[in-house]
Amino acid sequence: MNETTLFTRLRETAGKDWAEFTNHKFVKALGNGTLAEPCFRYYLIQDYLFLFHFSRAYALAAYKAETIDDLRYAAIAINNIVDVEMSLHVEYCLGWGIAAEDLSTEPEDVATTAYTRFVLDCGHRGDLLDLATALAPCVAGYAEIGRALAVDSGTVRDGNPYVSWIDMYASDEYQKVSGDSVTQLEELADRRGGELRFNALSQVFNQATRLEKGFWEMGWNQQKL
Amino acid sequence: MNETTLFTRLRETAGKDWAEFTNHKFVKALGNGTLAEPCFRYYLIQDYLFLFHFSRAYALAAYKAETIDDLRYAAIAINNIVDVEMSLHVEYCLGWGIAAEDLSTEPEDVATTAYTRFVLDCGHRGDLLDLATALAPCVAGYAEIGRALAVDSGTVRDGNPYVSWIDMYASDEYQKVSGDSVTQLEELADRRGGELRFNALSQVFNQATRLEKGFWEMGWNQQKL
Amino acid sequence: MNETTLFTRLRETAGKDWAEFTNHKFVKALGNGTLAEPCFRYYLIQDYLFLFHFSRAYALAAYKAETIDDLRYAAIAINNIVDVEMSLHVEYCLGWGIAAEDLSTEPEDVATTAYTRFVLDCGHRGDLLDLATALAPCVAGYAEIGRALAVDSGTVRDGNPYVSWIDMYASDEYQKVSGDSVTQLEELADRRGGELRFNALSQVFNQATRLEKGFWEMGWNQQKL
Amino acid sequence: MNETTLFTRLRETAGKDWAEFTNHKFVKALGNGTLAEPCFRYYLIQDYLFLFHFSRAYALAAYKAETIDDLRYAAIAINNIVDVEMSLHVEYCLGWGIAAEDLSTEPEDVATTAYTRFVLDCGHRGDLLDLATALAPCVAGYAEIGRALAVDSGTVRDGNPYVSWIDMYASDEYQKVSGDSVTQLEELADRRGGELRFNALSQVFNQATRLEKGFWEMGWNQQKL
Repeated sequence: MNETTLFTRLRETAGKDWAEFTNHKFVKALGNGTLAEPCFRYYLIQDYLFLFHFSRAYALAAYKAETIDDLRYAAIAINNIVDVEMSLHVEYCLGWGIAAEDLSTEPEDVATTAYTRFVLDCGHRGDLLDLATALAPCVAGYAEIGRALAVDSGTVRDGNPYVSWIDMYASDEYQKVSGDSVTQLEELADRRGGELRFNALSQVFNQATRLEKGFWEMGWNQQKL
Repeated sequence: MNETTLFTRLRETAGKDWAEFTNHKFVKALGNGTLAEPCFRYYLIQDYLFLFHFSRAYALAAYKAETIDDLRYAAIAINNIVDVEMSLHVEYCLGWGIAAEDLSTEPEDVATTAYTRFVLDCGHRGDLLDLATALAPCVAGYAEIGRALAVDSGTVRDGNPYVSWIDMYASDEYQKVSGDSVTQLEELADRRGGELRFNALSQVFNQATRLEKGFWEMGWNQQKL
Repeated sequence: MNETTLFTRLRETAGKDWAEFTNHKFVKALGNGTLAEPCFRYYLIQDYLFLFHFSRAYALAAYKAETIDDLRYAAIAINNIVDVEMSLHVEYCLGWGIAAEDLSTEPEDVATTAYTRFVLDCGHRGDLLDLATALAPCVAGYAEIGRALAVDSGTVRDGNPYVSWIDMYASDEYQKVSGDSVTQLEELADRRGGELRFNALSQVFNQATRLEKGFWEMGWNQQKL
Repeated sequence: MNETTLFTRLRETAGKDWAEFTNHKFVKALGNGTLAEPCFRYYLIQDYLFLFHFSRAYALAAYKAETIDDLRYAAIAINNIVDVEMSLHVEYCLGWGIAAEDLSTEPEDVATTAYTRFVLDCGHRGDLLDLATALAPCVAGYAEIGRALAVDSGTVRDGNPYVSWIDMYASDEYQKVSGDSVTQLEELADRRGGELRFNALSQVFNQATRLEKGFWEMGWNQQKL
């Protein structure tokens, strides 16, 4: 399998779901700066709760490690989320008027529960490849969204309060995190018979993609409230 | 701890959430026969998908068994769901014009994913008592709903297409299943320090209760579509 | 993959380890009736402890089920072990002067701990195919041992206290259990890319085979004590 | 529960098993420098394999995290094992003539399999407190052994090839790691009803202690070969 085969095929097969996730109106509104602030605030809080369970998913990957390299890769991801991403998140939220103590006491939205626990269950039920496949839409999807917004002529930079969010996911650092995760996915696919498991993996990828779309929906729907 | 202490306290502490789950307008509409049929059909299909993952939760309980009795209790629950409940469900759905093959191919609703995977994650993350606590609102809640509808003066029997559903959950058989599950919960609480863990268990119970309420919401919202 | 391909290849690749397990001096001594009784008694007790964790392994398989058939297959195995095998074991042990209450209070031998927990860890770490592969040497190995002893000219029937043990594993019932487990293994191999995962699966199979050999060693070594 | 209550009680209750582990003849022979070198070499190799699965146990603890602090504590432990201890181990083994590539290709001894997989199963089957209890004899036991050897009048320093091993476990750094793990255990006991679960936790602690003793036995027995 060449380096990007599995991810490329999964992404293509997710077709309409992938497009609806990566081009969601929430995403467009981040780009042109028109997103209602309550939507973004709600999203930020849920994303913080999400990150906690996402780091638990990488911990599960570390438990499932077959090699020292697997273990190291997952341990770096845990540290990255806990020490870097979650700290940045707290700081970032502060800038949006959300206090640190509010982050962990907010009730978890059903969309957050559904997505995070689905990924964890994929990991327990299947193997490392199933888990990496369930994690892929988030990591690689955000990189794709960040990069697309950064180059999109419709993206507004002046006065757009969401520019720093776009810049973070468009950054070389985040693009590398995403690139490494795709490389890891391909390596696992080679090792664990991915080529013969495409249909089942594709179902996992599609459901995770729909749950990502549901996460934007959740944020978007806050404007009606 | 006396026999029903933990469950009684959990149920009371869940307060408003428990009331909103057990007295949901979906439940009332089952009782007076006014529930729109598409709502019930959608609910039936999702409940079938739900049961599959619920039997996986009892399988997890069997894995976590500390005694032969734990193992036997969980094995009986798996068999009961797989061989009795799911078969009854298939048959019942047929009566509502839903073919068996449609049951397993329908996409899983986010409310179904959230509830089932939350329960499974509680089981993996914690111990048998955490798992039993996450399972309790469903089993004991349906028994309470069934019994309440059966004696409610607002319940219509003549021409109510949902009478057989009410009768199933009000039946002595189901009441016994529920009673046994509460007994098992109390036994686990005695064995695993439940008295000192009330606050954490209560959080699990409340979140499961809210996700049960979300399951009715999901069905109810089908009438708008 | 044709019906017996994966198992046949795993068994052949296990070569010397498989031969040392299935032709162990403990096995030969069961056949000719010369096994020291303390060895057999110790083995019986440890085998009872083993069965409990083995049924937990099938519970884990039920949790990991991808289809209703997976769930049913595992549920039958749990029930078979808990309700049939363990009950027979208790009765059988009684005939050897081992009281039921002694069975669950005996300390677990390191060989028992190693084998049972290795299988469980394979199941958590990998997928259903890894788990089925770790379980295979026991189920299929005992069937092969029983059948081989039943037809071996060196096997003594008159006055051999181990004849009923041989007959049980040589029986059509047990041969069917074993045959079904091989069929299930092949089915999982087809579904989960077994053909491309042979080397890793072979390592799991070999380690489980060595741990089975260690289980006979454990029994055999009781005569020195 | 005061800060050291649970660990102190577990250690006292383990009585003879704890003494046989911490005062094992392998330990004494490390102290006076008389341990046969093949015993130590075999132990070193198995300890490397052990560390890999031990870091998987901390990964499981990270997955089971209930708070960010739980996650951080476990993530630090994983990194400490993978980046510090295992690297030191590779270097240390080199000094004993064991090449890095031999470390991961050596077959795992049954004593290594039994101990590591037992700990992992305790973690999956129970909660964070069960897992921390199963990990405790190793971490706290090695600290106790290191400190005791460092002050023991029977310990030989001149010409003792095992002095660096003793110094490592007697070091302030390692004593702190052990102290922190006991603090974490007490904190979990407070949070998860440890006081009411003493008997069950004590059984886990005792079995882990016996498996630690079995690990020394494994090393010691190499001199007969």
